[in-house]
Amino acid sequence: MTALVFLDPDFPAGRISDAATAQLSVLDQGVTRGDGIFESALYTRQVVRKLDAHLARLRVSASVCDLTVPHEEAWRAAIDTAVAQFDAAGGAEEAVVKLVATRGTEGTSIGTCWVTVSPAPALGRAQRETGISVLLLDRGYDSGIAERAPWLLMGAKTLSYAVNMAALRHAKKQGADDVIFVSSDGIVLEGPTSTVLLAHRDRDIKRLITPTLETGILPGTTQGAIFTAAKAAGWELGYGPLTPEHLLDADALWLVSSVRLLTPVNSVDGTQIARDAQLHAELTAMVDAIA
Amino acid sequence: MTALVFLDPDFPAGRISDAATAQLSVLDQGVTRGDGIFESALYTRQVVRKLDAHLARLRVSASVCDLTVPHEEAWRAAIDTAVAQFDAAGGAEEAVVKLVATRGTEGTSIGTCWVTVSPAPALGRAQRETGISVLLLDRGYDSGIAERAPWLLMGAKTLSYAVNMAALRHAKKQGADDVIFVSSDGIVLEGPTSTVLLAHRDRDIKRLITPTLETGILPGTTQGAIFTAAKAAGWELGYGPLTPEHLLDADALWLVSSVRLLTPVNSVDGTQIARDAQLHAELTAMVDAIA
Repeated sequence: MTALVFLDPDFPAGRISDAATAQLSVLDQGVTRGDGIFESALYTRQVVRKLDAHLARLRVSASVCDLTVPHEEAWRAAIDTAVAQFDAAGGAEEAVVKLVATRGTEGTSIGTCWVTVSPAPALGRAQRETGISVLLLDRGYDSGIAERAPWLLMGAKTLSYAVNMAALRHAKKQGADDVIFVSSDGIVLEGPTSTVLLAHRDRDIKRLITPTLETGILPGTTQGAIFTAAKAAGWELGYGPLTPEHLLDADALWLVSSVRLLTPVNSVDGTQIARDAQLHAELTAMVDAIA
Repeated sequence: MTALVFLDPDFPAGRISDAATAQLSVLDQGVTRGDGIFESALYTRQVVRKLDAHLARLRVSASVCDLTVPHEEAWRAAIDTAVAQFDAAGGAEEAVVKLVATRGTEGTSIGTCWVTVSPAPALGRAQRETGISVLLLDRGYDSGIAERAPWLLMGAKTLSYAVNMAALRHAKKQGADDVIFVSSDGIVLEGPTSTVLLAHRDRDIKRLITPTLETGILPGTTQGAIFTAAKAAGWELGYGPLTPEHLLDADALWLVSSVRLLTPVNSVDGTQIARDAQLHAELTAMVDAIA
């Protein structure tokens, strides 16, 4: 079951709608042009996790895309209404809260904004335990593109995800579970729906590394929360540039995202990656404690 | 007024719907992921122009995106119904027939497909007369990407057009009307919604040139029709690779598309481009004769 609530000035708590029926115009630029932005947050144990970070990133995406979105309070109210609806209908142990804002119907200046709450996919939960095999795929952009070409919307989480979905299909056809994108100049970027995180351990020194944002990748809200917790726990933190060799040399490698959380990578392009049960357990505890 | 007809196995002539009301699920991957494909054709003087070419390109897009779309007859029947609806409601001298096919609601294997018919935008018609100023913008991809990285969906006309729209907004903020994308290695590609066409005249020899498809640009259906007509009229035809210098050196330069047709480019990055009234008149006559 999916709960659906539209942001609507006439409904301060959001307009409750039926996700099982049509609710969107075929002329909405969200569909005709993939012209809009989104966020996916995890709802579990009565908490929408990292909501501040998601709302902050939504604001950045809106700014990059020249989109006007409703004020934070309107989002929070709609989210409250949507999770209450979801729980009233039975709820789930883990659910995805999706925030969407489109440019609205062509010719109007009013965007379309809504919140859905749906059960989290079982596959992502299973992969947290089993780990995943990953393929490196060329993203086509060089690592300096973000600074040079703001119209490419790097760093905005837009609805134009066809390439991300195609990369995942490509990986699955090759027998892999997921993808890590690499820039045309050989720099590790991100997954189609996740952030790359690797760890090194040298005696008591533990070090977490993630690709630098200067490449134009999305700032991962989960990676951010893990970094904050790891720093407090005495880990060293580092930011790329990373090359594929860095992935292979890691003592542990993960793809992290808000809904799938911390997913261990077992192999990259068929090459086995080290797994470190203690590092994984420590980080999992940090992830579980994210509020 | 917009006419809307869904392709639906239960309705062989298409299911007539009301475009003014919501008809689409917010869970459709067309909107949540920009995961779908489209075509825009011109409907004028009772003819949907180049329909064979549009349906052929839709099939290519579907194949690149691993999308199953209904058979050509279903599209043709829905289009017939939609233009009849449009005409019955008053019609227009020029209208856009848009074909859309999405991957459908997540978890289902049934795509969502529809046809809309709407009046053609006045701006595009005006620009055919006035011409346009164009900005060159880096597309971020190098000109060899298409062969190397099929998961980037080069050559498919997907719904993930956020970057194309952002590039147009960027140009307008700079006071320009439109954009020509250039690859990261300096090769001329295409407009966000058009194909680049340039001409040279040397005494009686007239030559039309368009960028090579090997760069991964969309094959322009209008450019294709113009090439066929120009060849029959004795013009020489050429295919890039083109550099920005080739644009500046042209005796005439156009952006061509199915709805806007032949739009003369007055300037590129502020540099005036030659215009050749006779070449323009000849090509306009060819475009007007496209069936």
